[in-house]
Amino acid sequence: MAKSNLAVSKNSATPATGAEVRRLSRSGTLDGQTAGLAPGYVQGNLAILPRDWAEEFLRFCQANPKPCPLLGMSEPGNPAIPSLGEDLDIRTDIPRYRVWKNGEIVGEPFDLTSIWRDDLVSFVIGCSFSFEEALLQNDVPIRHIALETNVPMYRTNIPTVRAGRFHGPMVVSMRPLKPADAIRAIQITTRLPAVHGAPVHLGLPAEIGIEDLGKPDYGDPVPIEAGELPVFWACGVTPQAAIAAARPPFAITHSPGKMLVTDLKNTELALF
Amino acid sequence: MAKSNLAVSKNSATPATGAEVRRLSRSGTLDGQTAGLAPGYVQGNLAILPRDWAEEFLRFCQANPKPCPLLGMSEPGNPAIPSLGEDLDIRTDIPRYRVWKNGEIVGEPFDLTSIWRDDLVSFVIGCSFSFEEALLQNDVPIRHIALETNVPMYRTNIPTVRAGRFHGPMVVSMRPLKPADAIRAIQITTRLPAVHGAPVHLGLPAEIGIEDLGKPDYGDPVPIEAGELPVFWACGVTPQAAIAAARPPFAITHSPGKMLVTDLKNTELALF
Repeated sequence: MAKSNLAVSKNSATPATGAEVRRLSRSGTLDGQTAGLAPGYVQGNLAILPRDWAEEFLRFCQANPKPCPLLGMSEPGNPAIPSLGEDLDIRTDIPRYRVWKNGEIVGEPFDLTSIWRDDLVSFVIGCSFSFEEALLQNDVPIRHIALETNVPMYRTNIPTVRAGRFHGPMVVSMRPLKPADAIRAIQITTRLPAVHGAPVHLGLPAEIGIEDLGKPDYGDPVPIEAGELPVFWACGVTPQAAIAAARPPFAITHSPGKMLVTDLKNTELALF
Repeated sequence: MAKSNLAVSKNSATPATGAEVRRLSRSGTLDGQTAGLAPGYVQGNLAILPRDWAEEFLRFCQANPKPCPLLGMSEPGNPAIPSLGEDLDIRTDIPRYRVWKNGEIVGEPFDLTSIWRDDLVSFVIGCSFSFEEALLQNDVPIRHIALETNVPMYRTNIPTVRAGRFHGPMVVSMRPLKPADAIRAIQITTRLPAVHGAPVHLGLPAEIGIEDLGKPDYGDPVPIEAGELPVFWACGVTPQAAIAAARPPFAITHSPGKMLVTDLKNTELALF
């Protein structure tokens, strides 16, 4: 999710706004990670479900706001989400998608136009990029960004609240921090509930069912130095895992790391 | 909403917990305002809608979190909401209900058992009682509580975000405060987004379409003293007004001031 390899060549200008990233995605120019693009703009996880699954998924998000903070959603069949981007067309504006059938990935298209259906409901869920930007701006160092790897993520023994067919364990991301930085990070991310908010745990990974921090379930391991605590945040992979477990006949997500970039600014998400 | 006349006689012991209030409601012992009962416990607004209206109402709440902060909801047809009360039965546990048909009140029963349907979905929405308790605990005075009247509420020119058939103006409640108290109240209520959060406006009522503070649309007027500003919070009457405007064939709410008292503590709702 946090890979720093840019989607466009180093010689090209980095897109400066969410609208620019979406325009490049729409025209087919962009097919890479969105981390580092349009600094300051909110990026989001995508989930698209047929209407007869969407009501339960919305309840799942409502019941599990820390892993599934809903930034916006569409009317059924409507590819626009004006609250997230004036001209946003969810069928074209993400660099790459994943199409799921019965919980299995069946394709990774660049464009959804040919497979769009009038019963599809789009959900955009907050992403840790937003709070990582706030942490860095507050001089809280982030190990996986320094190492240019993906953040380590773990399945926990913390259950999500079931909603209809959606259920499963909460997935968390981990950042090692000195205790004073952990306290500051708790304060900073408390201000950002729309992008996972405050940590769910720190210090004792076994208590939440994590046996070996060196073996994350997703992403890459990072070293934990002496004097640091592992700090765990609810992670946007949780809803994707719930979709994979629920096995709806049809679903679409973004391809990992290739996020929707919105018109919202990270600063707008902060409570104060 | 904030009437301080207690529901039980002054000679009876005041119920100390949400579970006690619910038990008294269930047994028919309680038929009054719930303000002042079970101090410290979260009270909530109730809305019950048939399933074919509930999905749009949930989207309305999702799109309008300041007036409609959802504390919990039920599975369709299930009168339990375990996240809000271990033994909670929404059909019996509120002192008095209002039944609506096509946007008109058609009854005020004490019990829903005989009219319950297996397609009904219950929504419990945060209430200002919780943040008023936090304000008083922080020595911010509240005029309508001192006067033992209902808080004044006003329809504004701030539109809610439409979701399907639900729409309408935001309703706000008003508390006059000295500027330093207003700033402190903003800080305190920012910590409580589950019960309307920070104010939506202060100081210039005409800007939000309020012509005469002496003539509230709901509740009772309160005097504004020299050196005070009117401070406006999004109000839980907003969803009831949206239901009245949408005119669903069938709906149930609580009777004003006779709220659901939950097992949650007000202190649990604070972000930090």
